Amino acid sequence: MSVEPAPQGVPARASAATAGPRTVAAHRQAVEDLLRTWFRDHPPAHETVALNAAAGRLLAAEVRAPGNLPPFTNSQMDGYAVRVADLAAGNQPADPGRVRLATAAPIPAGSAAPPLLPGTAAPVMTGAMLPEGADAVVPIEACTPDYFLPAGQAGSTVAVPADVSPGQFVRRAGSDIAAGTPALPAGAVLGALQLGLLAALGLDRVAVRARPRVLLLTTGDEVIEPGIPLGPGQIHDANTTLLRSSLQEAGAEVLRSRILADSPQEFTDRLRADVAADTPDLVLTSGGISKGAYEVVRQGLAAQDVAFLSVAMQPGGPQGIGTVDGVPFLGFPGNPVSSLVSFEMFLRPALSAVTGAPRPRAEVPARLTAPLGSPAGKHQVRRGRYTAGTVEPVGGPGSHLVHALASSNALISVPVGTEHLEAGAEVTVLLLE
Amino acid sequence: MSVEPAPQGVPARASAATAGPRTVAAHRQAVEDLLRTWFRDHPPAHETVALNAAAGRLLAAEVRAPGNLPPFTNSQMDGYAVRVADLAAGNQPADPGRVRLATAAPIPAGSAAPPLLPGTAAPVMTGAMLPEGADAVVPIEACTPDYFLPAGQAGSTVAVPADVSPGQFVRRAGSDIAAGTPALPAGAVLGALQLGLLAALGLDRVAVRARPRVLLLTTGDEVIEPGIPLGPGQIHDANTTLLRSSLQEAGAEVLRSRILADSPQEFTDRLRADVAADTPDLVLTSGGISKGAYEVVRQGLAAQDVAFLSVAMQPGGPQGIGTVDGVPFLGFPGNPVSSLVSFEMFLRPALSAVTGAPRPRAEVPARLTAPLGSPAGKHQVRRGRYTAGTVEPVGGPGSHLVHALASSNALISVPVGTEHLEAGAEVTVLLLE
Repeated sequence: MSVEPAPQGVPARASAATAGPRTVAAHRQAVEDLLRTWFRDHPPAHETVALNAAAGRLLAAEVRAPGNLPPFTNSQMDGYAVRVADLAAGNQPADPGRVRLATAAPIPAGSAAPPLLPGTAAPVMTGAMLPEGADAVVPIEACTPDYFLPAGQAGSTVAVPADVSPGQFVRRAGSDIAAGTPALPAGAVLGALQLGLLAALGLDRVAVRARPRVLLLTTGDEVIEPGIPLGPGQIHDANTTLLRSSLQEAGAEVLRSRILADSPQEFTDRLRADVAADTPDLVLTSGGISKGAYEVVRQGLAAQDVAFLSVAMQPGGPQGIGTVDGVPFLGFPGNPVSSLVSFEMFLRPALSAVTGAPRPRAEVPARLTAPLGSPAGKHQVRRGRYTAGTVEPVGGPGSHLVHALASSNALISVPVGTEHLEAGAEVTVLLLE
Repeated sequence: MSVEPAPQGVPARASAATAGPRTVAAHRQAVEDLLRTWFRDHPPAHETVALNAAAGRLLAAEVRAPGNLPPFTNSQMDGYAVRVADLAAGNQPADPGRVRLATAAPIPAGSAAPPLLPGTAAPVMTGAMLPEGADAVVPIEACTPDYFLPAGQAGSTVAVPADVSPGQFVRRAGSDIAAGTPALPAGAVLGALQLGLLAALGLDRVAVRARPRVLLLTTGDEVIEPGIPLGPGQIHDANTTLLRSSLQEAGAEVLRSRILADSPQEFTDRLRADVAADTPDLVLTSGGISKGAYEVVRQGLAAQDVAFLSVAMQPGGPQGIGTVDGVPFLGFPGNPVSSLVSFEMFLRPALSAVTGAPRPRAEVPARLTAPLGSPAGKHQVRRGRYTAGTVEPVGGPGSHLVHALASSNALISVPVGTEHLEAGAEVTVLLLE
C-alpha cells in the first residue's frame, strides 16, 4: 500500500502543536472523528452468516418481513372455533345465555383447516389455524363440557356462551408484523430477541456488517509472551491479552497481535508490511510513545501523519493518533493499566458511536468508601469495585497494578479541578461489566 | 442410561399436587434447587484452554501468582536511578538543594542492570530494572539537564535534588502481587481484566469449568425450521433460536437443538436416546406442556419424575419441572414470548445463582409511559423499551408477538395484586441488555 494523503477530517500532525495537554473530551472526540472518517470512506463489507453465528453482530441492511406473522389467522386459546353469527340469538330456552352447537372434527396443528359449517364448533388448540368462516374462539373452560371429547365421537354437541365478540381470542394473520413491513432496521444489534424474530420470519441466514478489523501490536524489548520463562529485566506481555480481549468483547476482529522488537526501523518495516497485507481498519499499538530516550513507536512513525501528544489524564496521558499509510492509528501507553484505561476512555466509546457496537458502558453515580487524591490538572481514572451505589477504590494510582485492575469492575473518574475527595463523596464511575 | 431415582432435593412429582398455581418466587427457587442438586452431585469438569479462548469462562481453581509482579524492582518514571545516601548532604555550595552526580551507563530495558556505583546516577526508563544499590528514582524533569545525554558521553554529570525519599518512584518486586499469593479465586469470571492478569503472570493457558450442557428441543407438528418454506397451518420455529441464543449468551453449551415430531412415543424415545448419548446437565423443551388435547411433552413424560404445573405468571404460566432418566428437566410453554420470559424469569437466574455465570441481569425501577392492565392473580410480565428511568410498553400481552419482543430491551413486572397501573406509575424492569 502506498502512502496516501490523510482523508479529510483525520487529525493531522498539526493538532499536536497546540499548547498544553488535550482534555479527555477533546481526545475522545478526535478518536471518534478518526474512525468516523475512515468508516465513512471505507464502509464495512457485508457478510452473510447463519443465524446461530450472528449473535452480537450488526444487521447490514433493513430486513422486511417476507411474509405475515402470524402467517395465518390462528387461535390464541385451546377451545372451540365458532361463527359469532351463530351465537347472537341463543338457542337454549332453558339456558338463554348459551348456544348449543354440533362439534366438527378437531383442527390438527400444522395443516389447513376445512371451512367451518354454520351451526358447528371446531375444537382448536392454541396456534392452530382458524377454519374459514370462524371469527372467534371460545376457551374450553367457558364451554360445556369444559374438556375435549375424544376425536371422532359422532353427533356430539357443545354449549358455548352466546355473548362472544367477533375476533375474540383470534390472532389475525399479520397482526404481529405484516408482510413487506420493516422488521429490523439496518445496524440493529442481533441479540437473542432479534435472532428469534428472524427465525420466526423463516430466515436462516442474515447479512451482517463485517467487524472492525484491528491490527494490534505491543512494543518493548523487555516484553515476553506468556508461557515463555522470563530472563533478567523481562516482563510478560499483559497488554496484548488485555487489549485483544477488550477489542473482541467490543465486537472487533483482532487480525493479529504481535510483540515487535524495540528498534524503530524494524518496528516501522514490520508495521507497514502488516498494514499492506492485512488492510486493517485500525492499527493499535501499546508502548513506545512517551518522552523517554527509547520510544520505538514515536521514533518509528516520525515520517507518518501521526501526532504524539499529552492528554490531561492519569494514567494514559501520552497518546498517539493519526494515520499510518492512510490507515487510522492509535498509540496507547505501555503500562497495562494505562492501555486499558485508554481503551475504555477513548477507543470503546468511539467504536460505540461510529460503528453502533458495542453498547456504551453504563456511567453511574457512586459514593466513595475511602478518600481519594488526584494530581492537579489531570482527569484521574482510578480502579474500583462498585456495589449498589458505592465504589471502593482498589489499588493505588500506579499504572502497573494489574492485580488490582483484575479485582475491579469500575473506573472512577476524578475530573480536572478536584484534587481531594473525602469518603462518601459522589463520583461518576464507568461500569466495566 | 437407566432410570435413576431422583437425587435428593430434586422437586418430585408430589410438588405438582399442591393446590393452586405456584408463585413466581417459588418456581424460581424450585428451578434453582433442581440445578443446585445436580451440579452438587455432578460438578462441572475442568478443561484447559488458551487465554484467548477463555473469555467469559469461569476459573476452575484458585490461581496463585507463580512469581512476583512486578518480577523485579523497576522504575516508575523516566529519570535517574540514585542512592539516597549520596544525596543527603548535598555537594553544591552554589546550589545547596542539589547534588551533582557522575552519570553511569543507561540501563536498557529487558536486561539486568549492573550495580550502581556510589556517587553515580544511572539513566533509567519507566519499567527498566533498578540497579543494585539504587533506592530511588529522580524524574528527568527534576534534573539538570532535564533531558538525557547521548549515551557513551564519558565524564558527564547530572544535578539532582537533594531531598529525595528512599523508594521514590520505585516499583518494588512483588508490590502488585507477591509470588505464591492468591491472584484469582476459583469461579472467577474471566473478562479482559482477569485474562490480562493471567498473562502478566506468564500464564498462556488456564483451567476453566466446563459450560453447563443443555439439550434443547422444540416440539410441534406445525413447527418448521427456518429456511424451509411453510405449508398451510405451519409456522417457523423461533423458540430454538431464541432459547439457543439466550443459553449461549448465558454461558451454556447447547448440545443439539432439534424439532421433534408431535407424537408422545416418538418424542420420548428420541429424548431418552439423546439424553443417554449426550449426557446433558439439563433437558429443556418448549411447547407441549399445557392442558390442550395434544400435549406431547406432558404425555410423553408421564412415566418420568416430572411435574406439570401452573405458575401464577402471564405469559409463561404452564411449566414442567423434574428429571428425565435422572437428568434435570424443564419444560417451557411453546409460544416464543412465553418461552423467553420463562428463560429470563426462571432459568437464567438459576444458572447465575448455581454456576456463577451469567451475571444477574440488572433490575431497576422505571416509570411507565403508558397505562398497563394485568390479569387478576397473575404476575404479568410485559415487554418494554427502557430509556433513562422510563419504560414504554411494547406490543400487547400476546405471547406470540415476536416482532414486539424484538424491539424491547426490558421485561416489565406487574406483580400479583396489581390489575391496573397509570402512566407514570413506578414498575420494576429487568434489563435484557
